[in-house]
Amino acid sequence: MTAPEPDQNGLFQPVIEICATGGDVILVCEHACNAFPAPWGDLGLSGAERQAHIAWDPGALGLMRGLARRLGATTVHATVSRLIYDCNRAPDMAGAMPARSETFAVPGNAAISAAERAARTAAIYVPFHAGLHALIVQRIALGRRPVVITIHSFTPVYFGQRRDVEFGVIHDADPALARTILAEAEARGGLVCGLNAPYSAADDVTHTLRLQATPYGLANAMLEIRNDLIASPAAEEAMAERLAPALSAAIAALTATAKAG
Amino acid sequence: MTAPEPDQNGLFQPVIEICATGGDVILVCEHACNAFPAPWGDLGLSGAERQAHIAWDPGALGLMRGLARRLGATTVHATVSRLIYDCNRAPDMAGAMPARSETFAVPGNAAISAAERAARTAAIYVPFHAGLHALIVQRIALGRRPVVITIHSFTPVYFGQRRDVEFGVIHDADPALARTILAEAEARGGLVCGLNAPYSAADDVTHTLRLQATPYGLANAMLEIRNDLIASPAAEEAMAERLAPALSAAIAALTATAKAG
Repeated sequence: MTAPEPDQNGLFQPVIEICATGGDVILVCEHACNAFPAPWGDLGLSGAERQAHIAWDPGALGLMRGLARRLGATTVHATVSRLIYDCNRAPDMAGAMPARSETFAVPGNAAISAAERAARTAAIYVPFHAGLHALIVQRIALGRRPVVITIHSFTPVYFGQRRDVEFGVIHDADPALARTILAEAEARGGLVCGLNAPYSAADDVTHTLRLQATPYGLANAMLEIRNDLIASPAAEEAMAERLAPALSAAIAALTATAKAG
Repeated sequence: MTAPEPDQNGLFQPVIEICATGGDVILVCEHACNAFPAPWGDLGLSGAERQAHIAWDPGALGLMRGLARRLGATTVHATVSRLIYDCNRAPDMAGAMPARSETFAVPGNAAISAAERAARTAAIYVPFHAGLHALIVQRIALGRRPVVITIHSFTPVYFGQRRDVEFGVIHDADPALARTILAEAEARGGLVCGLNAPYSAADDVTHTLRLQATPYGLANAMLEIRNDLIASPAAEEAMAERLAPALSAAIAALTATAKAG
């Protein structure tokens, strides 16, 4: 993956891809890329470590784009590895700039000064959320009610334990969309599904939803797909084809409920 | 009040005044100013209407600055009248660009197109909250826990009804700081105090707190002072002198509790 370039102010802006069909779904991928640009560089990690799930969510970006084409969604993704700054974490969360991720040490994060934490926050986290926020509130100002869904992947083996769940749906304060997506996916079969699996909001994994959707009362959910199921472009496409009908049905059901209520 | 100028991108940035003593209190005044800059102009209001409480919170800016000097706080305020865009409202709230405020019609807001709503949101609301957000998360990244307090004033007579409350403290999801401030103010006497008076979060008045403090678990509260009590610079100073000890004591008590817990 080529290293992203900061803008003229040294900020790493998120990439926003607006679907021509102009639907009201916004898909977000905070862990889309495993790029380690200057001034941080590789943080002392090997090439294999920079390819591993600790550095990004393999397959999530391709899956998100496949879903976006099918749903008419707009997508927003970060361009920098989550190990430099994890945009789904507040600056005071341990996972924002982790010194350790699962079984891996991250040498370049072992001793970060407060000034360096502030610099990474300003260069990566602030522009990411500013860009997403501007997009969301523009839609709201136009009288629309965007649905916000974050797209993640997880490793099949974590701390040596095999994970059986294949598709997790996680909610923040409002569980409505997550529960509806889960019901639609389970009704269609073919995937081992779980609510708030393999993580939940209690693990601080819903930061983006909490910051961007909850304050506006927007329907929202976080999706987690086991990364061995989206390990190639063809597999990403197949998973997008499988999940898109469940997501469409869930969003339609929720929108109908909102209108009736 | 002289009309504020937009920046080179046409955005009305908030004014951020950083206290040299570098304390961890951030005071916010969304309704500090009654300026009606181009391209919107006076919205068809008379000079008297543009001076009235519907256009701004008279006395709130001066009170906030008086408090900031005493608390060592940083202040953030909007420079544009709330009738052009109310930065304490989401774009889909009726009060964001109101066609009517109390007994007053606002002709320039009577028929706003969706595009105009989006343009005002982009020019005023988005930069205000981006500036405040960047400030808050910089402090968090530096290992600090800023306390966020919004400063407002309210009219003594509303829809013809006299209001007896003089000092209201309003909370969003976390009532801890609001309750502590209220207790400290009541213990000191001299003001008719009320919790969630003359409004509450149910009236959608805690948008800034909900967006900027609640997602980070920061202590927060909204203060409302009856504007006849801060109707001159001397009165603003006297009220700052009266309230600062109660705020200091409340913040200290809450910080001590957080450290003990």
